[in-house]
Amino acid sequence: MKTAMSYGSVQEDLALVEAALDTLRDVDFAPMAEMMDLVLGSGGKRLRPALALLAGRFGQYDAELLVPLAASIELLHTATLVHDDVIDNAATRRGCPTVNSMFRNTTTIMLGDYMFAHAADFVARTGNIRVMRLFAQTLKAITRGEIGQDMAAFDARQTVDLYLQRISGKTASLFAAACEGGAVVTGAAEDRVQALREYGHNLGMAFQIVDDILDFMGDEDEMGKPVGSDLMQGTLTLPSLLLMDRYPQNNPIGKLFGQRRRQEHLSQAVEMIRGSDIPQESYSMAASFGQRAEEALARLPRTEARRTLRDIVRYVLGRRS
Amino acid sequence: MKTAMSYGSVQEDLALVEAALDTLRDVDFAPMAEMMDLVLGSGGKRLRPALALLAGRFGQYDAELLVPLAASIELLHTATLVHDDVIDNAATRRGCPTVNSMFRNTTTIMLGDYMFAHAADFVARTGNIRVMRLFAQTLKAITRGEIGQDMAAFDARQTVDLYLQRISGKTASLFAAACEGGAVVTGAAEDRVQALREYGHNLGMAFQIVDDILDFMGDEDEMGKPVGSDLMQGTLTLPSLLLMDRYPQNNPIGKLFGQRRRQEHLSQAVEMIRGSDIPQESYSMAASFGQRAEEALARLPRTEARRTLRDIVRYVLGRRS
Repeated sequence: MKTAMSYGSVQEDLALVEAALDTLRDVDFAPMAEMMDLVLGSGGKRLRPALALLAGRFGQYDAELLVPLAASIELLHTATLVHDDVIDNAATRRGCPTVNSMFRNTTTIMLGDYMFAHAADFVARTGNIRVMRLFAQTLKAITRGEIGQDMAAFDARQTVDLYLQRISGKTASLFAAACEGGAVVTGAAEDRVQALREYGHNLGMAFQIVDDILDFMGDEDEMGKPVGSDLMQGTLTLPSLLLMDRYPQNNPIGKLFGQRRRQEHLSQAVEMIRGSDIPQESYSMAASFGQRAEEALARLPRTEARRTLRDIVRYVLGRRS
Repeated sequence: MKTAMSYGSVQEDLALVEAALDTLRDVDFAPMAEMMDLVLGSGGKRLRPALALLAGRFGQYDAELLVPLAASIELLHTATLVHDDVIDNAATRRGCPTVNSMFRNTTTIMLGDYMFAHAADFVARTGNIRVMRLFAQTLKAITRGEIGQDMAAFDARQTVDLYLQRISGKTASLFAAACEGGAVVTGAAEDRVQALREYGHNLGMAFQIVDDILDFMGDEDEMGKPVGSDLMQGTLTLPSLLLMDRYPQNNPIGKLFGQRRRQEHLSQAVEMIRGSDIPQESYSMAASFGQRAEEALARLPRTEARRTLRDIVRYVLGRRS
């Protein structure tokens, strides 16, 4: 597992989550097992499952309940990534070939569905109705966010507010659910549940904004995808929305959304963003969500887990790929 | 709602299921609402939700629990159909244009995911852990069945046993879950739960075999798809497996799975099947599953609901499209 940071006291239990995820590779069909390797083995930071485990430190920590929950959260995340890759026709993700580039669309869609099924099964193992409801609500929020993004593709009439609403569904909802879920299954007091949920939501918002900044500012090799790929797919994120705000007339994004000379307009948009203080302004917004995440933490007891959660905020704000 | 038969005492509550399904159309995005209309409004027999309601007659019938369960079952079914249509690139289903033929793959995949989310949400409303587990297990069985079918596409080395295993996952598991779920949420005695599950499984097996016979024997207009479409997509079903058994050498299916003159080999295979007693033999197998379904019913009290369930077996065996 590639990870740039340690998850403190839950680092060990993350290995159990990994083992739970590994059970999915045990399928009858060799090509399917190969796909599963590609998807589940591709590393990732396992940030979401770590959040679920850490949140469990604020109740009666119980790995028997937390590990399936954490596995479920990671599978929900991975399943939506797999479907996204079909959608985007992405050939690589983080530098690795995507499942979709190696197998037929068919198989990729079903692989995603199979992972949803296992995610539902893992969450059911917690035996906790509230968490199972949370799981369903979160999947609804994620798909709504993604549908909103898709519906708005190549549509220049968008606002920062709509963007925030979209990333709240598409990304922050799962971060929030990981934290809320971990607290709920371990029977944490309701004020802690709410503080953790708020922490997760704000962390997720910060995470996605940083992701969207990196899409313009990151190193292509480290990111494993071309700079400006969101924009190329018609997705307006915070930096491009800010660029449109500043140059309401005659900005390259409007032209990019036309059909001709896209690559040229894209390069121009990337250059304008890189050369402006837009990355800094976007980053300030991410930092203010990070700030709110830390404020939510302040309502929790001062423990090692709380310190790790705070480190995660800083790690998320500081990441470069 | 098009339905060739009445579902007796639960017919009225099916309108509540319809209303529950209608809540999905209430989405912010106009194109999405349009898609939802197409998918949910396309009628269908609502057979699976009717089974869930009817099974509820063998416990403490409670529409508050049964309606969300029935809606969940229908959504699970519809979501897999929607993803299947992307997979098959089907342009029509039952004579209606598929979502996939009118919208981008992108949107169709997300529509399916959105329906999965709502299905999970509906089943969570039952507040019944066992039913929620059943839901997850069933989705696993369905996706395994579909993956198995996909992996075996255009592979002539298959057996009737493998076919039965596949349709058990892909189709019968949801019929069984509808019946088991209806009995479980209403607190039916365990022997009734098991009898209903067995009924559902065998009914589902019969249903799929009849479906597979109709793919060769049905009227193209009534079916809304070309004759032999399964075979054309590389899927071996009971009639084609029996044909291969009879003509191990030099049968048109082996040739069809090659790349050349597919349409010609397909017509030949369809003609050979239609001209043989293979449809009759396949039908006997369906009838024997129907028989087992009726035997399972015999273990239940002799009520109006039981009579309706028996009528459903006969309807399934008798359908022509």
